[in-house]
Amino acid sequence: MTQRAVRGPLGVAVIGTGRMGADHVRRIDRVVSGARVTAVADVDAERVKAVADRVDGCTPYTDPAAALAAPDVDAVVVASPGPAHEAVLSAALARGLPVLCEKPLTPDAASALRVMEAEQRTGRRLVQVGFMRRYDREYLDLKALLDGGSLGRPLMLHHRHRNADSPPWFTNEMLVNDSVVHEMDITRWLLGQEITAVTVLRPRPSGNAPGGLDDPQFVVFETDGGALADVEIYVNCRFGYQVQAEAVCENGTARVGDASGMRVDTAGRWGGGIAAGFMERFEAAYDRQVQAWVDATRRGEVTGPSCWDGYAAAAVCEAGVRAQAEGRRVEVELAPRPALYR
Amino acid sequence: MTQRAVRGPLGVAVIGTGRMGADHVRRIDRVVSGARVTAVADVDAERVKAVADRVDGCTPYTDPAAALAAPDVDAVVVASPGPAHEAVLSAALARGLPVLCEKPLTPDAASALRVMEAEQRTGRRLVQVGFMRRYDREYLDLKALLDGGSLGRPLMLHHRHRNADSPPWFTNEMLVNDSVVHEMDITRWLLGQEITAVTVLRPRPSGNAPGGLDDPQFVVFETDGGALADVEIYVNCRFGYQVQAEAVCENGTARVGDASGMRVDTAGRWGGGIAAGFMERFEAAYDRQVQAWVDATRRGEVTGPSCWDGYAAAAVCEAGVRAQAEGRRVEVELAPRPALYR
Amino acid sequence: MTQRAVRGPLGVAVIGTGRMGADHVRRIDRVVSGARVTAVADVDAERVKAVADRVDGCTPYTDPAAALAAPDVDAVVVASPGPAHEAVLSAALARGLPVLCEKPLTPDAASALRVMEAEQRTGRRLVQVGFMRRYDREYLDLKALLDGGSLGRPLMLHHRHRNADSPPWFTNEMLVNDSVVHEMDITRWLLGQEITAVTVLRPRPSGNAPGGLDDPQFVVFETDGGALADVEIYVNCRFGYQVQAEAVCENGTARVGDASGMRVDTAGRWGGGIAAGFMERFEAAYDRQVQAWVDATRRGEVTGPSCWDGYAAAAVCEAGVRAQAEGRRVEVELAPRPALYR
Amino acid sequence: MTQRAVRGPLGVAVIGTGRMGADHVRRIDRVVSGARVTAVADVDAERVKAVADRVDGCTPYTDPAAALAAPDVDAVVVASPGPAHEAVLSAALARGLPVLCEKPLTPDAASALRVMEAEQRTGRRLVQVGFMRRYDREYLDLKALLDGGSLGRPLMLHHRHRNADSPPWFTNEMLVNDSVVHEMDITRWLLGQEITAVTVLRPRPSGNAPGGLDDPQFVVFETDGGALADVEIYVNCRFGYQVQAEAVCENGTARVGDASGMRVDTAGRWGGGIAAGFMERFEAAYDRQVQAWVDATRRGEVTGPSCWDGYAAAAVCEAGVRAQAEGRRVEVELAPRPALYR
Repeated sequence: MTQRAVRGPLGVAVIGTGRMGADHVRRIDRVVSGARVTAVADVDAERVKAVADRVDGCTPYTDPAAALAAPDVDAVVVASPGPAHEAVLSAALARGLPVLCEKPLTPDAASALRVMEAEQRTGRRLVQVGFMRRYDREYLDLKALLDGGSLGRPLMLHHRHRNADSPPWFTNEMLVNDSVVHEMDITRWLLGQEITAVTVLRPRPSGNAPGGLDDPQFVVFETDGGALADVEIYVNCRFGYQVQAEAVCENGTARVGDASGMRVDTAGRWGGGIAAGFMERFEAAYDRQVQAWVDATRRGEVTGPSCWDGYAAAAVCEAGVRAQAEGRRVEVELAPRPALYR
Repeated sequence: MTQRAVRGPLGVAVIGTGRMGADHVRRIDRVVSGARVTAVADVDAERVKAVADRVDGCTPYTDPAAALAAPDVDAVVVASPGPAHEAVLSAALARGLPVLCEKPLTPDAASALRVMEAEQRTGRRLVQVGFMRRYDREYLDLKALLDGGSLGRPLMLHHRHRNADSPPWFTNEMLVNDSVVHEMDITRWLLGQEITAVTVLRPRPSGNAPGGLDDPQFVVFETDGGALADVEIYVNCRFGYQVQAEAVCENGTARVGDASGMRVDTAGRWGGGIAAGFMERFEAAYDRQVQAWVDATRRGEVTGPSCWDGYAAAAVCEAGVRAQAEGRRVEVELAPRPALYR
Repeated sequence: MTQRAVRGPLGVAVIGTGRMGADHVRRIDRVVSGARVTAVADVDAERVKAVADRVDGCTPYTDPAAALAAPDVDAVVVASPGPAHEAVLSAALARGLPVLCEKPLTPDAASALRVMEAEQRTGRRLVQVGFMRRYDREYLDLKALLDGGSLGRPLMLHHRHRNADSPPWFTNEMLVNDSVVHEMDITRWLLGQEITAVTVLRPRPSGNAPGGLDDPQFVVFETDGGALADVEIYVNCRFGYQVQAEAVCENGTARVGDASGMRVDTAGRWGGGIAAGFMERFEAAYDRQVQAWVDATRRGEVTGPSCWDGYAAAAVCEAGVRAQAEGRRVEVELAPRPALYR
Repeated sequence: MTQRAVRGPLGVAVIGTGRMGADHVRRIDRVVSGARVTAVADVDAERVKAVADRVDGCTPYTDPAAALAAPDVDAVVVASPGPAHEAVLSAALARGLPVLCEKPLTPDAASALRVMEAEQRTGRRLVQVGFMRRYDREYLDLKALLDGGSLGRPLMLHHRHRNADSPPWFTNEMLVNDSVVHEMDITRWLLGQEITAVTVLRPRPSGNAPGGLDDPQFVVFETDGGALADVEIYVNCRFGYQVQAEAVCENGTARVGDASGMRVDTAGRWGGGIAAGFMERFEAAYDRQVQAWVDATRRGEVTGPSCWDGYAAAAVCEAGVRAQAEGRRVEVELAPRPALYR
C-alpha cells in the first residue's frame, strides 16, 4: 500500500531550525534535486524568519502544526529536539504526510511505541528515521558484501566510534543514547538481527574526560542470531572523528571507515588527514539520505529505516543505560513486531 | 563583468543525447539542485524524443539552433561529438548563453582559437570546459595542499592512467587526444603553469594491445615553471580503471587515486576493489562539476575551466601527437594569453 | 647479581626435537650468531639422532639430564611438551644453567609457582620464557610508543588473533591456554599491568568450527591499572594467519599487524597477501628472540620474560578456562610478586 | 665448477674499516651465523686496531695484501673506497679467495672489465658485488612475482629514490654513480634485461638543493627487452629515506617500498613513520646478503650479483653521466657477455 506520487518538486516543511534543521534547509534548497523548502517552523521567531528569508518561496512559522497545514507542504523533515518529536509526528501522521524524522524517533521506548501505533492506524508507512549511516558509501558496500554471502555468515562486528571532544553537557546516558545508538542501528541493519542483551564496561577514564563522564566505554551487544557486536566509544580522543566497523565472517573479514583519500608523506611521516567531525565524515551520507527520501516520497514510497527501527533503538538504549548504571548484562525487552514492519 | 543572475531553476538545453549527453540529462533531472532540462537536441530524432519523454517539460529538437532559441533555455550543455562543438558554441555565444562544453572544446587548436575569439567578442566569459577531474574530491585536496605551500614548491608530477580495455576503434592519436588530455589539463591546473614541451616514449606493446595500438606509452611534459610531469598511459590493463597522481614537492609528496574504501581480507589476500570504469571512479566529480556550474550560472558567474584551458589542451595535444609520431621531444606553441583569461 | 659471561660460542642443549625443537636447532646452527648446538635430547632415539647428525659437534641424548650434564653445554633451550618442562627446568636450575623455555613455562599455576621458587633459591634469574611476540618488530614499536607517552595513557587494547585452521585435537581449553595466552602476555607486557579478571563470550560458532569447538570466541581482560583488553580469537577463519593489536590511548591510537609488504593490483582488486601461518608471520621474531637470549646469556644476563611472566600467564589461563566454562566473569588470583621479579 | 667447501666457521678478512667496513665487522661478529672476522685491514693504523680490538681473534693489518695472506682467512669482504677495489680484487683473485665487494665493483667500466678478465682467468666465479637490494624482502617478493608470470610480461618500472639530505660533497655525477646505480641494478635484475639507453632530465632544482647540485632529476632507461624504467632521484627531500618501485605488467601492477608497519592515528593524522636513512630501511637486506654469501661460500658456491653485474652497472653509469651532462639520450655500449656470466 503506497501513498500517491507527487508531480513536480516536493514541497517540504522543515520543523526545527537549529544546526541540523538549518543544514537540512540548505541541503534541500541547494543540494538535493526535486524538492524545495516551502515552510520552516521554530519556536524562535527570529531564527525561523532568518532561515526562511534565505530561501525563495519559503514561509516561516512558529507553530509546527500551522506549517504542516500549509497547502504547499507535501512532506515533513523533523529536526526539532527529541522530546518535541512525538507531537509533530502525530500531527503529520494525522494529515497523512510523509516524514523524515531525525534520530531519535522519540526519547524513550514507550513514546516510540505510541508513534508506531499511530502510524499503523494510518494503514501505511509514512515515517523514515534519520539513521543516515545506512546511506554511507562504505556501510552500503559492507551491507552488500554481507548480504552477498561470499564471506559466509557474519559472526562478530567490531565498532569504533571516536569524537575529538564532547560538549560540556554530555553525560554517561548520552554516550549511549546519542552516540552508541548509531552502532545499535548499524548492527541491527547489517546483520538483520535484533539485539537481545547489552553489557557496558567502563575502564578507568581518560585524562581528557570531563568530570562526571566515564570516557571511554566499551559496549557488547548480543543478537538473536547468536552474533556479538562490540563498540569502543570514546568521545574525547582529541585527534579527530573516526567511525570504523569490521565484520568478522566465517571466511573473511571486511572493514570500513579506515581513513583514506589523499596520502601525504612529509616530516618523517606517511599518512593522511582524519575528519574533524561527523559533518565532514558523513556529509555525503546526509545528502544521499535526503535525496533517497525525496525520490521515494515523490514515487509515493517509504524505503528507509522505519518506526520499528526507531522503537528498537529506543528499547536497546534503555537496556544500555541500565547496563551502564548497574554494571551488569541487561536483556532487551521488545514488543512483538507488527505486520506493517515485517 | 558578469552576466545576469537567474531566479528559479535554470532551464538547460542539452545538445547531444549519446552516452554522455543522456547521462547529463539524468544528472540535471535527478541529481543536481536548481536546474531542469527544458530542451534536448540530437540529429537522431528517435533517440532525442525518447530522452525528452523521460523528463517533465522537456522538448526534443533535431536542430541545436532551435533548442538554443527556445524561450525556456537559460544555459547549454554541449555533449555532441567534438567536431560539432564549434557550431554550437558559436550559436550559444551569439545568444549570450552560458555553456558547459564537454571536452574537447574543439578538436584542434585553430578552431579552439576561433571559439576563444568569439567569446572575447562577447566581452565576457560564457564557456566552461568539462575537465571534470578538477571537481574530484582527491584532486581538489591535492590542489589545495599544493596551493597552501606547506610542502614547498611542486617539482614533479607522476601520473598513472589505466583503463581495463580500449574500444576497438582506439588509435595512438586518441591515446593522446582522449586519454592523456586529462593529465595535460590536471598538470596545468595543479601547477598553474603552461606545458612547453612533450616527449612520448613507446615501450614494446603489451600482449593485450590490439593490433596497431602501441599500448602502454609514457609521456613526459615540461612546463614553463621548470617542473616535469610524467604520464603512464595504459588502456588495456585488464584489471580495472585507475587514475593516480603523485606530486613531489620540495619537502614532501602527496598522492591521490590509490584505491581506498572498504577493505576485505579473505582467501589469503587483504585489499579492496578497483573501479571498473571512469563513471564509477568519477561519478561524484561529474555531479559536483554540473552542480557547481549550475550554481555559478544562476549567480551570473563562470568559474570553471575556460576556453583558454580548452585551447591550451588542444595545442599540447597537437604537439603530443607529433612527438608520438616522430619519436622526439616537441615544443608547444601557444598564442599569447588574452586578457579575458588572465 | 648476574651469572658469569661466556667466552667463545655458547654451547646449547636443545631439549625436545619435535617441530619447535628441530626449528630451534636449525636456528642456532644456521641463523644465530655466537652459539652452537652441542647437545639435543629426545625420548625418540631415532629422531634425536637424525637431528644431531645434521649438526657438526652435536651429541644426541635420550635422557635430558645427561644432556644438561655434558661439559660443552652452557645453556638450555626447552622445547619438549609442556608437562615435561618442570623436570627439565628443575635440573637446569640445579646446575645453574640459563634456560630459554618455550611457552608455557608449565601447564598450570601451581607447578609454575614451584619453578619460580626453585629459581629464587638459586638467588638469581636463569629462566626466560618463550613469549616471542615481545621480539616482533611491530610489537616492539608499539611498546616503545606506549612507553614514550606521546599518546597519553593506554586505555584499551583490541586484539585479533586468527588462524586458517585448528588441528583436529583442538579444544575450548586450548583456545585459551595455547592461543589467547599470547594476548595475555602481550597485554601484561604492553601495559606493564596485571590482569585481574577474565570474561569469555561465545557467539554462535562458525560453520568452519569442528564439532565440540566453540569458534570464534571473544575474551575481555580487566587490569589492575583500570585498562580493558578484548581479544577476538578465531582459529578456523580459512583465509590465513592474522595477529593484530590496536592500543587506544588518551590522545591517539596505534595499530600493528595490518598486512603490509608488496601491494599487487590485478583482476579488479588492490591488496596483498596474508601470511599462511605463525612461522611465516613471526619467523623474524623467533630469530630475534633467540639471538637476544644468546647475546644476553654470553654477557651473563637474563633480559626476557621471566618465570613470573610464565606464572602469571598460567594463573590467568586458569581463570580464563573457568570463565569460559561457567559463562561468567572470573577474577584472577595471583601470589605476591617475589623480589627477584620486581 | 665450484670452489671447495669450508668446514667450521668461515674466516673473513674485512678490507676497509670506515662506516660500511666497521658495520660489516659488527654484522659478521654479532649477527651472521657461521663466520668470524679473523683479519681487518685499513691504511689508518689506529682505526683498524680499534676495530680489531673489539673482536676475539681478529688481527689488524695496514696492508690488505698481508691480511689476504693470513692463514686463517678463507674469504674477503671489500669495503674500502671504490678506487682501491681493483688492487684488492686482483690480489684476492690471485689467491683464489671468494670476495664480497661493496658496490661499485670498480669506479669505471674499463677497470671493471679488467677485474672480470682476471676472474675469468681463475676459471670460476669468486666475486659477489654488494647490490644488497636484491636481498630486501619486498624486492625478492617482487622478483618472484614477476618471474612467476601471473601478471604477464613487465612493461615498465617506476622507481622513486629519496634521501632526506645529501652530504656536502655530493655532485651531479654522484647522483648517477652512487644513487641511481641501485635502480640500474634492480632494473636489470628484476627484468633480466640489459639497459640499452639512458636519458636524464633536470627540472628546476628544489630550494633544498645545495649550490651546484641539480636535485631532483628524472632518469629514463630503455632495455633490450623493450621495457622502460623511470627513476625519480631526489636526495634532499628532507622528510626521510624512501625507496619505492612499481612494476607495470600486462595484467596488473605490483608496488614495493610503500611505508608500512605500525599505524598511528593522532593529532588529526593517520599514518606511520618514514625511515630516517638507508641503514634503517635496508638493515635486514644487508644482514641477509652477508648471511647468504657466508652460507654459499661455505658450500663452495657463488650465488649473488657477479662481476658482469658490476661491469654493466659501470657501463650504464658512464652513459648516464654523459646523458646528464649533454642533455640527450645516450646509448649504452656493452662488451660481449663472457660465458662465465651466462
